[in-house]
Amino acid sequence: MATSSIPDLRDLTIENITENVHAINSQCPDRRLKFLLERTVSHLHDLARETRLTTDEWMATLQFLTQVGQISSDVRQEFILLSDVLGLSLLVDSIDHPKPENSTEGTVLGPFHTHEAEHSNHGGHISQDPDGEPLLVVCTVKDVDGKPITDAKIDVWETDSKGFYDVQHADRTGPDGRAVLTSDEKGDFWFKAILPVPYPIPHDGPVGKLLGKLNRHPYRPSHMHFMFDKAGFDPLITALYLKNDPYETTDAVFGVKQSLIVEVGKVEREEQARKYGVEVGTSLMTYDFVLVADQAARELRRSKAEEAMASQGRKVRFIDDLPVPDVD
Amino acid sequence: MATSSIPDLRDLTIENITENVHAINSQCPDRRLKFLLERTVSHLHDLARETRLTTDEWMATLQFLTQVGQISSDVRQEFILLSDVLGLSLLVDSIDHPKPENSTEGTVLGPFHTHEAEHSNHGGHISQDPDGEPLLVVCTVKDVDGKPITDAKIDVWETDSKGFYDVQHADRTGPDGRAVLTSDEKGDFWFKAILPVPYPIPHDGPVGKLLGKLNRHPYRPSHMHFMFDKAGFDPLITALYLKNDPYETTDAVFGVKQSLIVEVGKVEREEQARKYGVEVGTSLMTYDFVLVADQAARELRRSKAEEAMASQGRKVRFIDDLPVPDVD
Repeated sequence: MATSSIPDLRDLTIENITENVHAINSQCPDRRLKFLLERTVSHLHDLARETRLTTDEWMATLQFLTQVGQISSDVRQEFILLSDVLGLSLLVDSIDHPKPENSTEGTVLGPFHTHEAEHSNHGGHISQDPDGEPLLVVCTVKDVDGKPITDAKIDVWETDSKGFYDVQHADRTGPDGRAVLTSDEKGDFWFKAILPVPYPIPHDGPVGKLLGKLNRHPYRPSHMHFMFDKAGFDPLITALYLKNDPYETTDAVFGVKQSLIVEVGKVEREEQARKYGVEVGTSLMTYDFVLVADQAARELRRSKAEEAMASQGRKVRFIDDLPVPDVD
Repeated sequence: MATSSIPDLRDLTIENITENVHAINSQCPDRRLKFLLERTVSHLHDLARETRLTTDEWMATLQFLTQVGQISSDVRQEFILLSDVLGLSLLVDSIDHPKPENSTEGTVLGPFHTHEAEHSNHGGHISQDPDGEPLLVVCTVKDVDGKPITDAKIDVWETDSKGFYDVQHADRTGPDGRAVLTSDEKGDFWFKAILPVPYPIPHDGPVGKLLGKLNRHPYRPSHMHFMFDKAGFDPLITALYLKNDPYETTDAVFGVKQSLIVEVGKVEREEQARKYGVEVGTSLMTYDFVLVADQAARELRRSKAEEAMASQGRKVRFIDDLPVPDVD
């Protein structure tokens, strides 16, 4: 365990370097950062010891990470991709946003959310792609007791019909395939979009090369992203997946959950077509989202954190709702 | 353990995602890479589970890593710095270049070695800095039986008198403070340099900011780098440290070993001064380096790898001298 006295850092060996790095880092006044660093250093050191990591392999890894950083830009985040394909993004979302059984499951955010989407009224078109198959999306958002959630902010985003997000086009002039919506007093929101298509995550960079070496394909099944934000509720980052997609069981970023798979139907009744301003026969996707109250999510997070700390043999203290070891 | 059948990757949870990422990665035809990835994914996932890592913390980490990549260039390698300050660089060197008791210990390479140093003959000046205190360096390189090693290639590098390596100067015109030497038939090599000074590792970037948050100073004690390359011997990456440096026990990158600390003396005899072309009273640093034969290093590496694999409960197979699990 870390101590607060400054150690003599000479003659460090395979066996004693970890405790000494912990000791010098234990001067950190931020207890949460100190805990994160302690576990990070322990795991990195154990990884090197267990695999007998070579200098060449480590240098190749540092070069790889450098490339991941350098290919990243305002419109491309290769480190998120790396986190996604290692299953870390889904894991962190699951830890941070635990879901009781009767609520909508979360999934990966991905690297393509932006903060510049325009607000769209009910029924607005979010896609300007003339080649996409028109899709009407009609949803509700409620709490776990079935009570409508009014004025929730809903971010939606999807690719164009070729499988590219707007930010992937060098010549784009503004947001497309994305919008911010607001639920009405019945918790309803609806908009016009295009039918999602499967697409590869960007695979012309270091992460794509890694997938190639692992003999893995870079495809994601057809999906549309949704993110919900409403005071008093735990933020929900999720997506809807189209049934029977060829990549349904092998998503490159591990995001698919059966409860999020939807069967796309058709607008069948004239009255319905008129209400939403579409033609009969238009593809129709519907879903009823259920958000978890802040307090319920916080309690679930805390009980799971207590379990995780106990399984490390550690007493826990919470600082700003985040666990740190309680060292008295 | 990994299986070779492709799993159904839907409905992954905190509890089952790790084994499923292993399963999809187990298609990798390179068994060493597969092993490295398996351990990396396990450790990263355990880190997230143990600390209850939040989405915000993880995004901040990805932003940090992106900045580490983006500040890196041909003449600055911030990921090596990060590895250095986490103790990983020293650990990996210790694992990859195990040293029997009667040989010279290794230490961190650091981010400032280059491949463009000019060859220098015995007695050449490696530093053009007029403000440095002149230093004569007189060394030998031998094997563990005391037999001189002839024609070893020796890279040496040090900072200028202000604590900066040549590559840190934007206006530099060529290599300075570095040279490549060759040992003679007696295993001797000598050169003129300047007395090393303590210096901070570059701390104007993300790694410096991290050290600040950890309440750690960025200084390295005064030292000169040496790297030995000779067919039949394990490469030696090491450094000599000046005795009684203020940072001797708190090196920011954990590199100091007591066996590598030297007391700088003076050239005392007229004859010695004449032989090396310096004045009586010039500072003098001497050291006798001892390299380990390739075969001895390989055997030591292998026995330690076998131990490490056994302690994970794994049978080991070696591919190109590197351990992988033997799964039959």
